[in-house]
Amino acid sequence: MRVLGVIVEYNPLHHGHLYHLNKAKELVQPDYTLAVMSGNFTQRGEPAVVDKFARTEMALRSGIDVVVELPTVFAIQDAGGFAFGAVAILHNTHVVTDVVFGSESGKIDILKKIAEIIVEEPEDYVEYLHQELKKGLSFPNARRVAIMRYVEKKRILDPTLVDIIARSNDILGLEYLVSAYRLKTSMKFHTIRRIGADYTEQHHRGKYSSATAIRNSIKSQDMEKVKEAVPSQTFEILMREFREGRGPIFYEDLSVLILATFRALKRSDLSDYAGFNEGLDERFAKYAPRSRDALDLLEKVKTKRFTFSRLRRLSLYPILMMRKDLVNSSNKKGPQYLRILGFTKKGRKLLAIIREKALLPHVTNASQYIQVLKKSLKKERFMHIDPSLFIEQFELDVRATNIHSVFFRSEEHRSYERDMRLGPVIIQK
Amino acid sequence: MRVLGVIVEYNPLHHGHLYHLNKAKELVQPDYTLAVMSGNFTQRGEPAVVDKFARTEMALRSGIDVVVELPTVFAIQDAGGFAFGAVAILHNTHVVTDVVFGSESGKIDILKKIAEIIVEEPEDYVEYLHQELKKGLSFPNARRVAIMRYVEKKRILDPTLVDIIARSNDILGLEYLVSAYRLKTSMKFHTIRRIGADYTEQHHRGKYSSATAIRNSIKSQDMEKVKEAVPSQTFEILMREFREGRGPIFYEDLSVLILATFRALKRSDLSDYAGFNEGLDERFAKYAPRSRDALDLLEKVKTKRFTFSRLRRLSLYPILMMRKDLVNSSNKKGPQYLRILGFTKKGRKLLAIIREKALLPHVTNASQYIQVLKKSLKKERFMHIDPSLFIEQFELDVRATNIHSVFFRSEEHRSYERDMRLGPVIIQK
Repeated sequence: MRVLGVIVEYNPLHHGHLYHLNKAKELVQPDYTLAVMSGNFTQRGEPAVVDKFARTEMALRSGIDVVVELPTVFAIQDAGGFAFGAVAILHNTHVVTDVVFGSESGKIDILKKIAEIIVEEPEDYVEYLHQELKKGLSFPNARRVAIMRYVEKKRILDPTLVDIIARSNDILGLEYLVSAYRLKTSMKFHTIRRIGADYTEQHHRGKYSSATAIRNSIKSQDMEKVKEAVPSQTFEILMREFREGRGPIFYEDLSVLILATFRALKRSDLSDYAGFNEGLDERFAKYAPRSRDALDLLEKVKTKRFTFSRLRRLSLYPILMMRKDLVNSSNKKGPQYLRILGFTKKGRKLLAIIREKALLPHVTNASQYIQVLKKSLKKERFMHIDPSLFIEQFELDVRATNIHSVFFRSEEHRSYERDMRLGPVIIQK
Repeated sequence: MRVLGVIVEYNPLHHGHLYHLNKAKELVQPDYTLAVMSGNFTQRGEPAVVDKFARTEMALRSGIDVVVELPTVFAIQDAGGFAFGAVAILHNTHVVTDVVFGSESGKIDILKKIAEIIVEEPEDYVEYLHQELKKGLSFPNARRVAIMRYVEKKRILDPTLVDIIARSNDILGLEYLVSAYRLKTSMKFHTIRRIGADYTEQHHRGKYSSATAIRNSIKSQDMEKVKEAVPSQTFEILMREFREGRGPIFYEDLSVLILATFRALKRSDLSDYAGFNEGLDERFAKYAPRSRDALDLLEKVKTKRFTFSRLRRLSLYPILMMRKDLVNSSNKKGPQYLRILGFTKKGRKLLAIIREKALLPHVTNASQYIQVLKKSLKKERFMHIDPSLFIEQFELDVRATNIHSVFFRSEEHRSYERDMRLGPVIIQK
């Protein structure tokens, strides 16, 4: 049995995603396809434009059989944390055989060689990395230069090939491979070249517009452009969500919450949260009272050392109460459960297999998570589970949903406690 | 030298306030008048409709010579904490000789007798109080009944007279007297009957409308009614503030911030803040994800045991990071500084006397507060100051200003760090 695993955000699902999914299926010829998907906040440090249940439905109606939530603690970390969580979820299903990811380069062999260096940490490479970081380069840049110098010295690769990891999807792909090495997973990794716009591309590019461009079209209520760029099922779901008052939600909607929260926090309070180091605690505390809104705050805090996405992610940690301890233990112990967001009729069969084989307990009804944990602790297969980490990770996902829904226009949906009251999305096809 | 002290919020200053001030001056014939005033959040648990600098100007242009800020940690506590902070500020100026407060009853002797019982805590009274609290009465009600039973038994007073402390200003006046006893102050207390509407009165009542009714008129943009109810100088200041984009600000404006903050906090996190006891931690945590907005949350949390104002005050503590430790030490050690918000030309002379005599250091430029503290610690007169409590109280006031200004329409004023960059309000008259 072959099971294809994909790592997605689908914010929202567009033609580029669908193309990638179909290409991946052609390549792997899977019996089933499973996606691990960010929940209500994404790796760019933004609230998802529509919530995770709607995006699950988009996935299921586009050829995914089972959608598992990437726990928030991983979804809003840097590429390394995101990748570790996502690959660990796929690995722990214990049914996924092949993972396909999109990349700008499409060069799996080079990415694998680079990943190997990163995992094995040869002395010279570590030395180069320290040197580059000292020069004030951001971590991804310092790492790229250090690897270039290393492969040049050791004559492993043409150093110019290392340049591929300057691009966002190659960086992410590299991190998937690093996590795969670390987890010693038997899953096979493939990459296919992305088509269409870079996902950071701001502007509409017709059928193959980036998710960012599509969100911008939604923001400016240019629904014709959105319609062009997404499959019809995505468009229907988006329109239904907007009509029902469940979105669209943008980072800017959180502006007052973020600005007021940072004005309330002292520099020393920020040390409770991950990533407020390298002077960032001081900069956030200093500029919060002097900023017009959340984006202005990020711009004032920014130096060339930090990417904007990183700062935007950091700005979410205090409002979601995502504390450093939780991040650190999660990065050590990995995800503690498989939250099933939805499945098709066919996916139900895969779920039955997962139930037998997975290395983590799965939660299909969020309101039952404590019962799931209790039962799991009795099974030898789940002896490695850390019960308090399970609870902390799960409660963060629930908090993220409840905070996301504060920004729904509909009062009814805003007060619905969605995680506790909605079951998984089930598509009968 | 006689110095009149008054305890005010001026949210906003209206004809009733002016009447009270002039009556108080007739009674005391003071050389100077000093007000202690709430800053940017008030005892009803609301943001002030316009900020403390604008309200200071209203006071100075209406016959007050010096305005001192009531530190936020006291301003948004219950009547007891509010009164303790305010009376301690007046006492610590060491120049105020007479305090006049408004009350529904106007009966100082009865209030003093009741205050004496509360301070001296005779055994029978304490026993009655416990009995009434056990029945589930709110604290003010339980106390009233216990005092009634006590004075009846001891034949100190006609018990029906105790009923006066059912009304909000008599309750507050009683707390002033309790604090005065506890501080063993030599200041003389007087009360005069309030005229016009009760301050909780929602509706416009012409010239003598309550501050609540005036804020409601502002909310519904009925500026003709506002004009009728406030002195012309207040009206001018209000209009200027609104024109400049600095208000009006209402509790409802904080709704998203409050709702999202409570959705982020676990029940156990709430124990960091004062007052989340008697099951309130559980109720806030339970209802936050199920509420449409902040007012809906308070309504869902409410039982007959709690007043709405109490719940609204509690809802501010997490967003201002006003922690239990700070409240407890403040209620033990009192205010640690006199923050001078403004003064008239005449008031400058009083300030010179305060500089020599006060039992607390005074801060006229907030940006200098650390320097003021350092200098003060060298003076024997200020040996009783707790430096870390000074800093904590002061930083809370600054936070409160910065969080209040998040809700200004004007981006310029929203990002101005008002406490750090505005000096005291000075009126040349």
